[in-house]
Amino acid sequence: MNLILLSPDDVENDRLARVRDPRRLKHLRDVHGAAVGDTLTLGLENGPMGRGMLLEYHDDEALFDVSRLDEAPPAPLGVHLVLALPRPRMLARSLEHATALGVKSLTLLNTRRVEKSYWQSPELDADRIHRHLILGLEQARDTRLPEVRLAKGFRPFVEDYLPGLLGDSRGLVAHPGMPHECPRGVEEPTTLVVGPEGGFIDWEVEQLLAAGCQGIHLGPRILRVETAVTALLACLS
Amino acid sequence: MNLILLSPDDVENDRLARVRDPRRLKHLRDVHGAAVGDTLTLGLENGPMGRGMLLEYHDDEALFDVSRLDEAPPAPLGVHLVLALPRPRMLARSLEHATALGVKSLTLLNTRRVEKSYWQSPELDADRIHRHLILGLEQARDTRLPEVRLAKGFRPFVEDYLPGLLGDSRGLVAHPGMPHECPRGVEEPTTLVVGPEGGFIDWEVEQLLAAGCQGIHLGPRILRVETAVTALLACLS
Repeated sequence: MNLILLSPDDVENDRLARVRDPRRLKHLRDVHGAAVGDTLTLGLENGPMGRGMLLEYHDDEALFDVSRLDEAPPAPLGVHLVLALPRPRMLARSLEHATALGVKSLTLLNTRRVEKSYWQSPELDADRIHRHLILGLEQARDTRLPEVRLAKGFRPFVEDYLPGLLGDSRGLVAHPGMPHECPRGVEEPTTLVVGPEGGFIDWEVEQLLAAGCQGIHLGPRILRVETAVTALLACLS
Repeated sequence: MNLILLSPDDVENDRLARVRDPRRLKHLRDVHGAAVGDTLTLGLENGPMGRGMLLEYHDDEALFDVSRLDEAPPAPLGVHLVLALPRPRMLARSLEHATALGVKSLTLLNTRRVEKSYWQSPELDADRIHRHLILGLEQARDTRLPEVRLAKGFRPFVEDYLPGLLGDSRGLVAHPGMPHECPRGVEEPTTLVVGPEGGFIDWEVEQLLAAGCQGIHLGPRILRVETAVTALLACLS
C-alpha cells in the first residue's frame, strides 16, 4: 500500500476523510507506525491525490486532512485488456497486476478452454473484484478505478462487442505462433486480447483475426497468463 | 508443464530416458492422459529438445525415446538479473518468472531493506531453488538451467563482484525516480539490478550508480517486485 486510497464513503467533506476499516487501520499502525501529525500519501477514489495530515488517530478510526490533495493520478495506460477468464487465484493476481500497470478497462472473456466452473467462482463477485482493483491502485499509487466487464459468450463478444472496441482502437491478439512481435511503446488506444492457459482454439484465433485484430507473439517461450499479461502490457506501454 | 524436462539422472543412454518421479508421472497421467505410442515434447536438461515417443508406461515409470531430440532451446535472454532477496513466497514466483522469461544468470542480493529472516528461509536451499528453476523451464519450453548466486553482503557485491559484471555488460539499476526510462529491446549483455519491496536506500543507489550502473525507471507507478521484474525483462527483451 503506497497510498491510502479513500472511498467516497470515507469522505466527510472537502477537508476531512475518516478511515474506519480494519485493513487500512492495521496498515497505518503496522507499516507506517502512524501518529497524529504525520503526513501521508492519500488519494480520493477516481479523484486527486497528494499529501495529507493525520489529524486524529484512534484504534477504530483515523481522520485525515484531505484539503490539499491537488495532484493528478498517473496517466492511464490506453489498453483495454480482454482476458480469457483465468482460474480464480490467478484472476485475483491478474486483476492486481493489470490495475497496477494502469489498465482502466478490462473484459473477462469466455473461451473454449476456460473451465466452466471458473464462472461460478466467488472471486467474480463485484465486491471481490473491487477489492483486487483497490489493491492494485494502492500498490501503484493511483486513484482511477478500472471498469471490469464479464463477457460470458465468446461469439456475442466477437460479433456484437468487439467491433465497437475496434472502431476506436487497434486490436491485438496475443497467441503463440502469430506472425508479429508485440509492438513497443504504442501511442494509440489498443485492445489487447489474451487467451487462457492452454491458449485459444484455432477457431477463436480465426474469429479474432477476421474481426480485425492483429496476431502478435512474445517469442518462442510459453508464458503463464499472469506473466504474459504483465510482459505484454510492459511492451505496449 | 509445456515440456517434459529430463534430468541427467533420467537418461539411460542416447536413446532412452526413464521418468520415475511422481510429479511428472502425475502430469503425464492427468494432463496428457498419456498412452504408449504418444509423441510428446521432451527436453534434456542443458541440452536439446524435440519430440519423443512414450515407449513404455507404468504407474511408477515412463520410458521415452530421446534419440530424435534435435532442436536447440530458445535463445537465452542476455540479462544477468541481480535481485534484492524477496520474501520467500515471492522468491519462488520471481525465480519461476525470470526463468520462464529466459534469464540464465541470477544473483540474489542483500540490501538494507531485505529482512534478515529471509536469508534463513528453506526456499534458499539449493534443491528448492532448483525446483523453481525447473518449473520455469518446463513452463517456457526451455532446457538451459539458470545459475543462481547468493550475495549476502551488499558492499562486497558492489566492490568485488559488480565491477567484473560491468566489465562485460551494461549495468542498469531500476529504482523509482531515476532519470531514464527502461531501454527497449537491448541487444548487448545487460546487468539489471532490482531493489527490494520498499526500495533501495539512497546510499545503495549511490553506490550502484558510482559503480557504473545507469538509473532507470518504469514510470510513476510503484510496482510489486515480481511485476516490476517481469515488466523490466519484457522491456529489455
